[in-house]
Amino acid sequence: MVSRVKRLFIGRPMKSEELGEEKLSKLKALAVLSSDALSSVAYGTEQILLVLMTVGVAALWYSIPISVAVLGLLTILILSYRQTIFNYPAGGGAYIVAKDNLGLSTGLMAGGSLLVDYILTVAVSSSAGTDAITSAFPSLHDHRVLISLIMITFLTVLNLRGISESASVLALPVYLFVCSVFILIVCGIYNYITGGVSAPQPVSGMTMSGVGLFLLLKAFSSGCSALTGVEAVSNAIPNFKKPAEKNAASTLVMMGVILGSMFIGISLLAYWYGIQPTEKETVVSQIAASTFGRGTIYYIIQGVTALILFLAANTAYSAFPLLAFMLAKDKFMPHMFMVRGDRLGFSNGIIILGVLSALLVIVFHGNTENLIPLYAVGVFIPFTLSQLGMMVKWIKLKPNGWGLKLIINSIGMLTTLVITFIFIITKFSQVWMVFIFLPVVMFIFYSIHKHYLNTADELRIQIDIDKPVIKGSTIVIPVAGITRVVLNTISYAKSLTDNVVAVYVGFDDEDIQKMEAKWEEWNPGVRLIVLRSRYRSIMKPLIRFIETVEWKTADTDHITVLIPQFITKYWWQNILHNQTSLLIRAYLFQQKDIVIATVPFHLNR
Amino acid sequence: MVSRVKRLFIGRPMKSEELGEEKLSKLKALAVLSSDALSSVAYGTEQILLVLMTVGVAALWYSIPISVAVLGLLTILILSYRQTIFNYPAGGGAYIVAKDNLGLSTGLMAGGSLLVDYILTVAVSSSAGTDAITSAFPSLHDHRVLISLIMITFLTVLNLRGISESASVLALPVYLFVCSVFILIVCGIYNYITGGVSAPQPVSGMTMSGVGLFLLLKAFSSGCSALTGVEAVSNAIPNFKKPAEKNAASTLVMMGVILGSMFIGISLLAYWYGIQPTEKETVVSQIAASTFGRGTIYYIIQGVTALILFLAANTAYSAFPLLAFMLAKDKFMPHMFMVRGDRLGFSNGIIILGVLSALLVIVFHGNTENLIPLYAVGVFIPFTLSQLGMMVKWIKLKPNGWGLKLIINSIGMLTTLVITFIFIITKFSQVWMVFIFLPVVMFIFYSIHKHYLNTADELRIQIDIDKPVIKGSTIVIPVAGITRVVLNTISYAKSLTDNVVAVYVGFDDEDIQKMEAKWEEWNPGVRLIVLRSRYRSIMKPLIRFIETVEWKTADTDHITVLIPQFITKYWWQNILHNQTSLLIRAYLFQQKDIVIATVPFHLNR
Repeated sequence: MVSRVKRLFIGRPMKSEELGEEKLSKLKALAVLSSDALSSVAYGTEQILLVLMTVGVAALWYSIPISVAVLGLLTILILSYRQTIFNYPAGGGAYIVAKDNLGLSTGLMAGGSLLVDYILTVAVSSSAGTDAITSAFPSLHDHRVLISLIMITFLTVLNLRGISESASVLALPVYLFVCSVFILIVCGIYNYITGGVSAPQPVSGMTMSGVGLFLLLKAFSSGCSALTGVEAVSNAIPNFKKPAEKNAASTLVMMGVILGSMFIGISLLAYWYGIQPTEKETVVSQIAASTFGRGTIYYIIQGVTALILFLAANTAYSAFPLLAFMLAKDKFMPHMFMVRGDRLGFSNGIIILGVLSALLVIVFHGNTENLIPLYAVGVFIPFTLSQLGMMVKWIKLKPNGWGLKLIINSIGMLTTLVITFIFIITKFSQVWMVFIFLPVVMFIFYSIHKHYLNTADELRIQIDIDKPVIKGSTIVIPVAGITRVVLNTISYAKSLTDNVVAVYVGFDDEDIQKMEAKWEEWNPGVRLIVLRSRYRSIMKPLIRFIETVEWKTADTDHITVLIPQFITKYWWQNILHNQTSLLIRAYLFQQKDIVIATVPFHLNR
Repeated sequence: MVSRVKRLFIGRPMKSEELGEEKLSKLKALAVLSSDALSSVAYGTEQILLVLMTVGVAALWYSIPISVAVLGLLTILILSYRQTIFNYPAGGGAYIVAKDNLGLSTGLMAGGSLLVDYILTVAVSSSAGTDAITSAFPSLHDHRVLISLIMITFLTVLNLRGISESASVLALPVYLFVCSVFILIVCGIYNYITGGVSAPQPVSGMTMSGVGLFLLLKAFSSGCSALTGVEAVSNAIPNFKKPAEKNAASTLVMMGVILGSMFIGISLLAYWYGIQPTEKETVVSQIAASTFGRGTIYYIIQGVTALILFLAANTAYSAFPLLAFMLAKDKFMPHMFMVRGDRLGFSNGIIILGVLSALLVIVFHGNTENLIPLYAVGVFIPFTLSQLGMMVKWIKLKPNGWGLKLIINSIGMLTTLVITFIFIITKFSQVWMVFIFLPVVMFIFYSIHKHYLNTADELRIQIDIDKPVIKGSTIVIPVAGITRVVLNTISYAKSLTDNVVAVYVGFDDEDIQKMEAKWEEWNPGVRLIVLRSRYRSIMKPLIRFIETVEWKTADTDHITVLIPQFITKYWWQNILHNQTSLLIRAYLFQQKDIVIATVPFHLNR
């Protein structure tokens, strides 16, 4: 039953050889890996305008130079990550680059930061998508958490079906979004040039009192939130079709060009149309309304925007399991993240991501806006570390043309570092948690690592010295009466060794004498030892007896406790029988170096 | 830790020989076993008056003849149960008497009815006690369910400490209640005789239109609710000090005399004082207020009454585990009800009673008044069956003086039968459930019985024919690598037989070749069989292999699957390791007649 439901949702299991078919072409990769970055267009410009509005309408013209600066940073990031892709073709996330060049701890810091960040991404973008839905259908407002959870479940199941399949499903809305934003920009520019817009355009070039460097930096850093998700491609190189590096690099550049032109286009239109950010309506919505009026096209743009906000979460679904896999391979995360599921995805990573982000949504009742700055810091820390890592690499290796490469990465590193500091300074009340969770996550990484190393140490043998040693064997059988299960168990034990003893725990003299007499009559060729329990506990005398046997014979013999057990046909019948054998088993298993075997007897009725 | 908390609440474990010390003296028995019956005095008279009031104040005088009739029925029940005690000294509950004389099904009907009834008793009386508390402290009204649950927990723990101890705790409030009611009656009568009461006394002896036989019967049956709990003594004979029957019989008569005089006393005072039942104040409270005014004595009487309503539940705690024990001995209830706990009580019965009544309180949100008629029917059905059983016994055996005995039981049987019918007819909407739960309970009894008989059948051996048979042995060891656990397991296996094979499941060629090469180098003297899993599942190929081995060798060999397993030091470390071995074990255990043994290796770090 369970397995059928699983087949229905996840699909048939795939053979390991089919892994190649799960790889992504450039177009599909763009859809899966860029949804996070591209969706930022829906709110990036608005973030800049919101900061500027705190000074006044006259300050809005600063959005143009700031947008250009963001575009510049984007270019640097793209160039920088392109370099990373060719240098780390096995997947060059911040974790790998930082670990390789800056040492393990720095790598783990970048990796831990990204892991937490992907969880935040899913929580934040599923909440954002839900907000878009409840704006359209206010009656659903009370069910926000439920809607978010349904969407998270949907994405989880989709990704469990496999990367390729999820790419096919997601490609349509992503390309629809790109097309509609481009149509909006082209028509908007045409309208503006042909004079179809009446809004007063803010005076430009005027320096204003009140607009200090701090404010500009704040506006710039807010605009930089549009750059989150850019690193996804470099993490996910192993998911690309061959030649993976080349395909990944082209995809990255494509994404950069699309993202850059969409971002600058929206910023320009917002400036030309004199749009002011308000609480009630998004900037994109205002531009669309001014360009097309509130007709069919307007609603299509709104719908597609809501969809892309949702799908931004999917980037995390590609990146989290891969990063977890890399950390698990290095023994910093549980082994289970290395297991490929039925559909060849790292299903445990996918499921854990879904569960943790769902928990976040539940804990925050779907109000995850406050997590956005935390999420941005979580991206810019690994950005900075990754660039710093590349700088160290160039200085160390000095390949051809390393000067230019170093300059690119240095500019990128400095900018992202500054942005990180701006975030920490301007929004400390929302990002302080990063100083708690980063050390905690790193502590967990190191604890796991230590455990794996210790375990490997303890389990390791020298194959030229450590060989099997043959010892004697003593078998102890706890019996509760003379039944077919006991007969079976004794038959089994006598087939292995002559050193078999049965133990019976009796509660009173009558009981004990009866058992002894019946045993003698049966005479199965095994000695019966009878213990008396004054406290009606079977466990205690039995365990004391086993301890005595262990003390006497452990040097020469392997000791086996053989538990006769009948297995009922239906599970509920178990409440009709004592479960003493399970208790004995659990106790000995945890406490003793004794072999415990169960000789089962299946009841048919 | 758990065991210390247990010691603190339950007390030190007792030896089986100490059972004698747990037996009850007459005075203690009266306290434990009569609290249910005596507490009925608090509401018995009121129940009669409430029915009569539906016609009018002038009808209240009928309460006197009706009370006399109830007193008559009480006398008959006491006499009848006295006969039962001497005839069934091992405990003559309705279950035993009915089973013995009327057949098994009738006995089970009586037993099932009583079992359910005891659960209802605890739920109803803990709710009634809670109502008394919340009447005094209205601010606690919102916490009624919690208070009920605390009281149920208190009674459960008290009874787990042992019958004798619970008797000591309960004796004081029971005797306080009896004393204060007697003081009330004596002072009340004195007041009335000396003319200290001014209330107009209803005219008596007047026949009224509107007072039909139906109404009188209804009032009578309501008054009979005061008789619930009378059967408790005859159920609990095994709990008495020797000579048990004599002590039980005296206790029963004592209880009858006390109950009868208290009941008739309260009824008389209510009549003389012209008291009318109201929703706001109980009849006992009105009498007490008229007699003593609302001073200290009044509040003591109210407090003690509330306490006794609570403690009524304790009678069920004595009777339920004993009845469950008898049913379990006859294989109609799970064996676990036959196990004596640390303090020699039948702890499973006590715990189950507590849990089920707590569930009832939770489901009904503490409003268990509607369960009272159901509860009364649940008592009168076994009353009737038990008397009918005694009638059949006299007719069959015809001992000395059987005529009188037959007459007593016949009158008792007819009266209780009539009362049962009156309950069913007048309160069908509240008691219809009995027609559902009785068949269900009986079905469960028979299902359990059938399972035990089937199991015994399947497990039974003929000790002169069925002897142990020695076969060969094949051991299969699933290995995941070459480690110390595997070394241990192979050492163990080779100590038992030469017929050992190790199985490795590999995912790709490289993996498999490496393992084969390393195994050859190690050369532990055991053949390695390598399986390839195309779907990355270890379970499936492994189980298919074991099935093949089984198919080939099961006739000549015992097959053992030996699972190497290391055990982590702390439980949470388990999430860092694959739990495949547990899955293999669980599957084979449920499906196959194969011995599964775990060779443990305890990690120290």
